[in-house]
Amino acid sequence: MWSHEPHEKLKFRLGDKVADIDVDATPGFHGKKSNAATLQFERNLRFAELQEMLYARSRSGDTRSLLLVLQGMDTAGKGGIVKHVVGGGNPQGIKYTSFGKPTEEELSHDFLWRIRKALPEPGQIGVFDRSHYEDVLIVRVHNLVPPEVWEPRYDEINTFERGLVDSGTTIVKVAMFVSLEEQKKRLAKRLKRPDKYWKYNPADIDERLKWPLYQQAYQAMLDRTSTEYAPWHIIPANRKWYSRLAITELLIEALKRMNMSWPPPTFDVDAEKKRLASV
Amino acid sequence: MWSHEPHEKLKFRLGDKVADIDVDATPGFHGKKSNAATLQFERNLRFAELQEMLYARSRSGDTRSLLLVLQGMDTAGKGGIVKHVVGGGNPQGIKYTSFGKPTEEELSHDFLWRIRKALPEPGQIGVFDRSHYEDVLIVRVHNLVPPEVWEPRYDEINTFERGLVDSGTTIVKVAMFVSLEEQKKRLAKRLKRPDKYWKYNPADIDERLKWPLYQQAYQAMLDRTSTEYAPWHIIPANRKWYSRLAITELLIEALKRMNMSWPPPTFDVDAEKKRLASV
Repeated sequence: MWSHEPHEKLKFRLGDKVADIDVDATPGFHGKKSNAATLQFERNLRFAELQEMLYARSRSGDTRSLLLVLQGMDTAGKGGIVKHVVGGGNPQGIKYTSFGKPTEEELSHDFLWRIRKALPEPGQIGVFDRSHYEDVLIVRVHNLVPPEVWEPRYDEINTFERGLVDSGTTIVKVAMFVSLEEQKKRLAKRLKRPDKYWKYNPADIDERLKWPLYQQAYQAMLDRTSTEYAPWHIIPANRKWYSRLAITELLIEALKRMNMSWPPPTFDVDAEKKRLASV
Repeated sequence: MWSHEPHEKLKFRLGDKVADIDVDATPGFHGKKSNAATLQFERNLRFAELQEMLYARSRSGDTRSLLLVLQGMDTAGKGGIVKHVVGGGNPQGIKYTSFGKPTEEELSHDFLWRIRKALPEPGQIGVFDRSHYEDVLIVRVHNLVPPEVWEPRYDEINTFERGLVDSGTTIVKVAMFVSLEEQKKRLAKRLKRPDKYWKYNPADIDERLKWPLYQQAYQAMLDRTSTEYAPWHIIPANRKWYSRLAITELLIEALKRMNMSWPPPTFDVDAEKKRLASV
């Protein structure tokens, strides 16, 4: 149902403008919304299969891993990706970390300190629900540190990610975008349903008022940290079914490009068959 | 489809003998195998809902958590529980840890050191794939430490778990049992399929030969560490569909007994509705 590979259609290209993103679009997808649930189910299985292979290989010494970096304004659907996309995998091989307001201890170290501790081990899929990019997003928008501190972070992040890629971690970075109207609807829903109150934070509205500043900060982030080795992908997220399908495909594609196969046995299969038959 | 609550039917009672476990049985279940897939799907959803509530409450200061302890001989199906039962939950609130052979660093500390580091945070469901119980199972069977070291561990474990429960962690302990014939079949399958080789370990056969010693060690573990505050459950595991359904029910039951409701809002809902309408 994809006319174009999502990783090609969604990859950020220098010159792309955050202000121009069509958040209602479904780039590369020519199926219908009514196909989405079945397709999501099938692709979750494919994702799970590749995830198992990645994990299996780590048992035989393959040290590679994958890291999914989720960024997006409140209500963009990061939580839904964790639940419906990552949740399709096996908890055995998932390392999920949510990065909220840094603790005192975290603030006493450099901004990548807490990030390094959350990196995936060999064979794992790491999931960052927000990430080191908050240090050039909310931190920049709210002047939490002066420009001479956040400004060098773009380059520091690139160097950091270069190192990760060189040591065998494939990085999949996605920035999810919803319209302000859609955000309003989603916040209103959280205020309407007692089972959603916990997802609501009055500060979300303050952030909403700063959208133009966030737009600038997202633009700078994309312009300066979308690299060949760790490109950003722009996910139109007004349609949840689309953003979930698209990110599932990005993960599948990234895993396929790792060119994996089931690891060969580390023992003599025939000898073991004989041993087993005798006990 | 349950004639009796699984947590009552499966709870270990002093006097129960490992040698007498009917591993083909499906205690408390009066449905058919053909009902299992649909029921599993439905109960996974219920589990996910309760898990979300536990997680949501932690955001409002509820510090409770749940810990699932999985024990069982090789091929008993621990991995399947992680994939098909725990995997029904949201990775956001799952903390999974597999305990293999201890590292040098772990061995330099007391046996509970690595366990403490893996405990669930408030709102999380911790999953121990093997656990501190290996220190009175494989360690005892292989004489990895002298009896004067492992013998006091039963009491140490009870004290440790008492402390966990007192600080708000509900502990669900399950011991999964398969027959030696069923284990043979499952090992044979791993030797037949290249996508299963990675799950096979030649040492599994050595362990298999020590089944009588393991049986003694499991018996002692059950007799001495099944407490009122953290009882063991015996899971007949020759039928995978049953063990998965049963452990799902144990988790649901444990979560229900926590008497949770959606947390009340920490803000003035009407005031927030007005604020939102204006921006």
